Amino acid sequence: MILEVADIRIQPGRQAEFDAAIADGVRRIIAQAPGYQGHQVHKGLESPERYLLTIRWNTLEDHTVGFRGSPAFAQWRAVVGPFFAQPPQVEHFTLLTES
Amino acid sequence: MILEVADIRIQPGRQAEFDAAIADGVRRIIAQAPGYQGHQVHKGLESPERYLLTIRWNTLEDHTVGFRGSPAFAQWRAVVGPFFAQPPQVEHFTLLTES
Repeated sequence: MILEVADIRIQPGRQAEFDAAIADGVRRIIAQAPGYQGHQVHKGLESPERYLLTIRWNTLEDHTVGFRGSPAFAQWRAVVGPFFAQPPQVEHFTLLTES
Repeated sequence: MILEVADIRIQPGRQAEFDAAIADGVRRIIAQAPGYQGHQVHKGLESPERYLLTIRWNTLEDHTVGFRGSPAFAQWRAVVGPFFAQPPQVEHFTLLTES
């Protein structure tokens, strides 16, 4: 399992619209992608325009090659992109420990 | 539930030492704190000195007042602080959606 972490900053005052858009976009588009395992969307307390979208993929390539190379990527960006204040910062992680 | 996200950058080449230190520190110190629910430690793929420590707390104050105001905070920082390349960036989040 690989965790994608997208650190998202949206335009001020659009939280309610974005809450609905990201939930809908993940459900309709990302959750249908091959290799998708699950996700979380978190909203910032100190930074109310900040969201963390974390997606569990079977492999790194399921995200970087499969999803990003598919028509679904443009569909996803059409849903959430209009809210972005800047390009999201996206990196990948492996799980070291949890409880 | 409130999620604490600590974005950590350690000194290059010290990953193996830090892997052991953070796992030990969370287990011995943070996991004993009032309000602790659980945690994950993730290691960066693109940025091998980057770690994301996420901790679920019952309330924001369990972290910001209870834990940070307790002797355990200094104990924790003594375990992990020597590895830091810079001060961690810490913010808190609420869960919007997951699957």
